[in-house]
Amino acid sequence: MGTRVSETAVSTVTHGPIEGSSKHYREVDHLRVPARRIQLTNGEHLDVYDTSGPYTDATATIDVERGLPPTRDAWHRPDPVNGASTQLAWARAGIITDEMRFIAAREGVAGELVRDEVAAGRAVIPANHRHPESEPMIIGKRFAVKVNANIGNSAVTSSIAEEVEKMVWATRWGADTIMDLSTGRDIHMTREWIMRNSPVPVGTVPIYQALEKVNGDPTELTWEIYRDTVIEQAEQGVDYMTVHAGVLLRYVPLAAKRVTGIVSRGGSIMAAWCLAHHQESFLYTHYEELCEIFRRYDITFSLGDGLRPGSIADANDEAQFAELRTLGELTKIAKSHGVQVMIEGPGHVPMHKIAENVRLEEELCEEAPFYTLGPLATDIAPAYDHITSAIGAAMIAQAGTAMLCYVTPKEHLGLPNRDDVKVGVITYKIAAHSADLAKGHPGAQERDDALSKARFEFRWTDQFNLALDPDTAREYHDETMPAEPAKTAHFCSMCGPKFCSMRISQDVRAYAEENGLETTEDIDRKIAEEMAAKSAEFAEHGNRVYLPLEATAGGSPTR
Amino acid sequence: MGTRVSETAVSTVTHGPIEGSSKHYREVDHLRVPARRIQLTNGEHLDVYDTSGPYTDATATIDVERGLPPTRDAWHRPDPVNGASTQLAWARAGIITDEMRFIAAREGVAGELVRDEVAAGRAVIPANHRHPESEPMIIGKRFAVKVNANIGNSAVTSSIAEEVEKMVWATRWGADTIMDLSTGRDIHMTREWIMRNSPVPVGTVPIYQALEKVNGDPTELTWEIYRDTVIEQAEQGVDYMTVHAGVLLRYVPLAAKRVTGIVSRGGSIMAAWCLAHHQESFLYTHYEELCEIFRRYDITFSLGDGLRPGSIADANDEAQFAELRTLGELTKIAKSHGVQVMIEGPGHVPMHKIAENVRLEEELCEEAPFYTLGPLATDIAPAYDHITSAIGAAMIAQAGTAMLCYVTPKEHLGLPNRDDVKVGVITYKIAAHSADLAKGHPGAQERDDALSKARFEFRWTDQFNLALDPDTAREYHDETMPAEPAKTAHFCSMCGPKFCSMRISQDVRAYAEENGLETTEDIDRKIAEEMAAKSAEFAEHGNRVYLPLEATAGGSPTR
Repeated sequence: MGTRVSETAVSTVTHGPIEGSSKHYREVDHLRVPARRIQLTNGEHLDVYDTSGPYTDATATIDVERGLPPTRDAWHRPDPVNGASTQLAWARAGIITDEMRFIAAREGVAGELVRDEVAAGRAVIPANHRHPESEPMIIGKRFAVKVNANIGNSAVTSSIAEEVEKMVWATRWGADTIMDLSTGRDIHMTREWIMRNSPVPVGTVPIYQALEKVNGDPTELTWEIYRDTVIEQAEQGVDYMTVHAGVLLRYVPLAAKRVTGIVSRGGSIMAAWCLAHHQESFLYTHYEELCEIFRRYDITFSLGDGLRPGSIADANDEAQFAELRTLGELTKIAKSHGVQVMIEGPGHVPMHKIAENVRLEEELCEEAPFYTLGPLATDIAPAYDHITSAIGAAMIAQAGTAMLCYVTPKEHLGLPNRDDVKVGVITYKIAAHSADLAKGHPGAQERDDALSKARFEFRWTDQFNLALDPDTAREYHDETMPAEPAKTAHFCSMCGPKFCSMRISQDVRAYAEENGLETTEDIDRKIAEEMAAKSAEFAEHGNRVYLPLEATAGGSPTR
Repeated sequence: MGTRVSETAVSTVTHGPIEGSSKHYREVDHLRVPARRIQLTNGEHLDVYDTSGPYTDATATIDVERGLPPTRDAWHRPDPVNGASTQLAWARAGIITDEMRFIAAREGVAGELVRDEVAAGRAVIPANHRHPESEPMIIGKRFAVKVNANIGNSAVTSSIAEEVEKMVWATRWGADTIMDLSTGRDIHMTREWIMRNSPVPVGTVPIYQALEKVNGDPTELTWEIYRDTVIEQAEQGVDYMTVHAGVLLRYVPLAAKRVTGIVSRGGSIMAAWCLAHHQESFLYTHYEELCEIFRRYDITFSLGDGLRPGSIADANDEAQFAELRTLGELTKIAKSHGVQVMIEGPGHVPMHKIAENVRLEEELCEEAPFYTLGPLATDIAPAYDHITSAIGAAMIAQAGTAMLCYVTPKEHLGLPNRDDVKVGVITYKIAAHSADLAKGHPGAQERDDALSKARFEFRWTDQFNLALDPDTAREYHDETMPAEPAKTAHFCSMCGPKFCSMRISQDVRAYAEENGLETTEDIDRKIAEEMAAKSAEFAEHGNRVYLPLEATAGGSPTR
């Protein structure tokens, strides 16, 4: 891997299973498809989608200096179709690749659905041939909503080892892809370490590194410098690249009247270049050459929204939608080269303007997967923008967005640390999963049902282990009731040991079962017939379920 | 106030202005209407809705032993109309009360709109005659979406002083009402302290205290005990009361087949009573007597959803909607007595089932204000249920819910502490404000625009002060850039001092202004005419806006 990071740094990478879970592999043909198995105390288990790679496999040897095993190198790679060795070209030719098979098993769908959606351009599989360490995943609205986490180093605040750790940490909690947004020195080496150790697809914004090569002066950028940077990153295995090719010269002044102008870093770099040279963006004029490079490696375009709104006031404006129309044209061109495409979206958008973004994107971009940053539903809560944006993210995902780029609590204020990365990922898993439920994604509700059942049956440990973040759930519970027996107690701290609405419910259920009340009709009949007998019976086994609350705690969140 | 709490406890109550703000009163007729004035560094200011009462007035003397001044006692109280001295009766009679005038000024709407909505039963003003310390507020879908915070003591974990502090703390951050859900000993005295010191309406669930009086055995409850408890609380000034009068005997078995049965504490108490006695709930059979009591004080009904779903699996089921139909009947009865009514709603509901809740509530309950708990959009994230529920809360408020009951990070796990209360309130202010924006509530976007403008102009201090939580925003910024000059720096830690997309945007804007580009047509014309000249000009004042990033930090959240 060329330069080495220190032994000390290497040893800090987080590994080992998430509490209460273990790695479980299914053999599908010659493929080993990973899942996270949550073992329950009642003997049942639940397998959930697992993004964390070998790091959570207790039996795996983790050596970040060596990198992950290049598993996909051993998979079958079909012949090129019309010169293209891309998942899109193969899908169109009717071929179900190993990557598609792997994905079908992970998602619990048919391989043919995966192929269909990729062939139609409604889904992408970011899988550079040179990133054989990755476990293939799919981004498309017919599949589980995905979450991306941004990381990236700088000379000042983080080391390469820290960035590798952030990648491992983010995927541990469910990040489906990682974007390495490193700037400053050591960009190449940082990326190399991340690529070789990442079990998920990695995206970049090549213009950032290109800018480093011209000492940070955007006007000095050239197509050649950019192209060479793309090739350098392509060789390293970057799976998808953000390209702000839709920021055209004539759109730049549209941003002048905005409350917050241009807030995309890549967008503003290209705007500066266009203004300085009074020329059309080289990303646009050389776009077909870029397609040829992307096709060679099967890199997926993530067409950047350089003119996305940075405030509620600027949402859905002329600048934003002018660029989106151009992204639609670029989508068609990329696909004609056999290259996969997804489209980046905003940003800051009030709730009533969210659906319009998805509608227009689908109309203009042939339903290419939409990949949005939030959007933030209000501007007024810096320090809570993971939440302002989770509201928008859940809604835009329900409307059809395929992947959500996370936002951390530090958005607009500073640099996310490890805790922020985790909070960002968990918050976005909530948004994504809420959308999966709303879309009726097959199997999505199984986890909700398993957790609620555990909650109702006072299986505390199962409730924690089924949670998106078992550690924090356990920690919060322990604050009030630290004793181990409390983990099996038939009550919680909200109502105390002697009274509990869940317990009364169980009495109701027991009554229904004892009386053979299977259907609503049974219930109605029984109410008429037997309710009188209930009085005595209830008194027998559950009458005094409540005693004075000396031992209980207040602040009950129920009413 | 009867029993006294210790001097030490009293001195702990939080007071003084929120950082960057000061109390501002407008004189409206003889009324003093408070607002929070956020002073900006550019000489402008923004006045925002203020729930915090005298506690944030630097000139006020705070003495919790004495309580707040009984301001409303000096206001004009109109004569009874058909025996009723309620805001509803007066509104129907065409009278705009002082309370309505005060509210109109706070909300920035006409007094006539307030009267209209109250008269129609689409809005309520919870204002017990015996709570003269409160600053009147309105709950209705034509007005700003409101937030309730639950507090409540217990013998073990908190003192009375702590509960008063929680009330002050919650209203400081924006809680529009408080529910005192105390259980255990000292319920009466705790409530007395809260009432006398609360600048916002206070709600309770009287069945909790009634249950204490029968030593916690729900089957020992009687109408007489309940009635006397209601009168006791009414005399203290409770502004609205949750009454689970819709939990009918025949609905109880409907909950038996649920994944999580009955999760409402009040609902399960009444279910237990109904089953034990094989009788219809005394809340239902004595409902008209209850209306008469409520009318005397102008207490508002909050008709409880005792059968709300406690899991995604149980959302929108037969038990829930059967109860809602009964709440519709009870709404009509209360209104016929001149009593104000709002309706409580769920709970746990996936996103695609949220709108149906509002639609049915409005249809069945004559558009009485809807007051929902979340709903949580998924069950799988204990420790993050403020977030799972903020998603549902924002959506249900957009659909027409008038007040949102907050959920804290400790929901399902333990007792919220002071930090949890703040996070819960801020999270719900986000949901409520996002809905205000989506509904086009007059003036709502002013704060977003002011904050975004401050952000774009690098007025960091203004950005913090305009935030829902200035303290945390400042703290997060200081983690990366603690120095005071950074508060006026024209960059942030995300892109560093030498390069910034916001800065380039300002260059773009400067260019547009210098060239007299006022409209899109101007821009198009100028692009054709003058773009060539731009190159030299841009080079002059903004060309090298970027230098190597030695001094910058990574992990950029932009792409």
